[in-house]
Amino acid sequence: MCQLLGMNCAQPTDITFSFTGFAARGGRTDHHADGFGIAFFEHKACRLFIDNQPSAQSPVAELIKQYPIKSRNVIAHIRKATQGKIHLENCHPFMRELWGRHWIFAHNGDLLGYSPTLDGQYRPVGETDSEIAFCHIMQGLRRRFGDSEPSPAELFETVEALTREITVHGVFNYLLCNGRALFAHCSTQLHYLVRAWPFNKAHLIDADITLDFAEVTCQDDRVAVIATRPLTDNERWTPFEAGQLMMFEDGNLSLEAFIPIPDAVRAKNAANLNCV
Amino acid sequence: MCQLLGMNCAQPTDITFSFTGFAARGGRTDHHADGFGIAFFEHKACRLFIDNQPSAQSPVAELIKQYPIKSRNVIAHIRKATQGKIHLENCHPFMRELWGRHWIFAHNGDLLGYSPTLDGQYRPVGETDSEIAFCHIMQGLRRRFGDSEPSPAELFETVEALTREITVHGVFNYLLCNGRALFAHCSTQLHYLVRAWPFNKAHLIDADITLDFAEVTCQDDRVAVIATRPLTDNERWTPFEAGQLMMFEDGNLSLEAFIPIPDAVRAKNAANLNCV
Repeated sequence: MCQLLGMNCAQPTDITFSFTGFAARGGRTDHHADGFGIAFFEHKACRLFIDNQPSAQSPVAELIKQYPIKSRNVIAHIRKATQGKIHLENCHPFMRELWGRHWIFAHNGDLLGYSPTLDGQYRPVGETDSEIAFCHIMQGLRRRFGDSEPSPAELFETVEALTREITVHGVFNYLLCNGRALFAHCSTQLHYLVRAWPFNKAHLIDADITLDFAEVTCQDDRVAVIATRPLTDNERWTPFEAGQLMMFEDGNLSLEAFIPIPDAVRAKNAANLNCV
Repeated sequence: MCQLLGMNCAQPTDITFSFTGFAARGGRTDHHADGFGIAFFEHKACRLFIDNQPSAQSPVAELIKQYPIKSRNVIAHIRKATQGKIHLENCHPFMRELWGRHWIFAHNGDLLGYSPTLDGQYRPVGETDSEIAFCHIMQGLRRRFGDSEPSPAELFETVEALTREITVHGVFNYLLCNGRALFAHCSTQLHYLVRAWPFNKAHLIDADITLDFAEVTCQDDRVAVIATRPLTDNERWTPFEAGQLMMFEDGNLSLEAFIPIPDAVRAKNAANLNCV
């Protein structure tokens, strides 16, 4: 499968530190070596970098480690292919436009027997179950709200309903973001933490690097980091429960819901847990 | 205004040479210093790099000059802002999905009194007339063909009709690509050449660099390069006529049309020519 990394912040924040640890898992400290991608929102714009080289070696990943892009919302993904070939069009995250905003989606998991009816407004470019699920969500949002952007609470409710439809098909850990709210859903494995004042030092698990956030932040900073597995070994990461959907805004967990996973699906998902 | 660069090829080709000359115009040899962007198609995938730093200085542009991405279709743009602030969301090229393909668009010009009715299927994220024109074209294609991808000839005919609607509003030099066909339209200034076997040496205008294409190509290669102004000083660039629309496929000019520009618009456009 794959690994996910997300960041949602009160102020534009540089993800270089977390990405350095995360990228090492793409071929150096772990085996997710079938491409990677990272999307940064800056105001309403979104930069999306994808590469089919492992993130531990990719020149694109090297640029991102060296070029501090300040963003309030980031989603990154390193791929271990399960469905779809190792082609660039199958690299996450995926991007679409809705309500004059870019939307970004990345998925860790495997959906089986999943073939929703897509009406053509959003169609997958590549071959993954993940991009189909993204198109399903985008189509569902447009059908529910038409051309009018809903409130965050209405949006959350509909994302929850769509997640409920999809999560019965298998492992559906995902991150979804429209540049304001970041949604994180856990089927099997996802963790998060919120860094806020007073900031402390953090030490990466995947590289012997320590950063003292007290030196690079101010009192208004607030950063939620979501990752498949914890990135640091001296901070308290909270594991999601299987079935939890959270929405982060301005570095805060603003809404959450629990979507029960049927026992049969949970048993199948558990069998996949070791591959995550 | 801005400058455009496009490439359409029979075989995946590295654009490093042309981009090196082109990028110098973003703040070194010319004044188009309000951001840049470049999109590379690889199979059906598309990598889109944008930066609000001048292309002559941007670390992202530096990566592209160093990292030979082989592509059959490329569109690049360096920006001199006329409408829209120097925000990243206003950097070209823009990307949308239609018929399970990415579409890429970049524009050089200025459209006045232009406010098409957009039905919400494609909405601009930024503030430029250019992105509105792109959404107009995407909407027009979907309205005409619904969910069925047309033949290249049908596609050309509809792009021509949509261009006819938009070009009366001002300077509308553009490049549009779906990963197979590359459309190039000229209101005021655009040039192209086709490099084919037997290949020769080329020398950049904007940097003292010569490349002998005979050493890096094979007999099957065929590369169409389209640019606002010629990039090399020892090759024969063909200027587009004002009103010409061309479609390139596999490095060949496959279809062309002439869209007459009303005299009043032509006079206004001519007044803008020196700024291009």
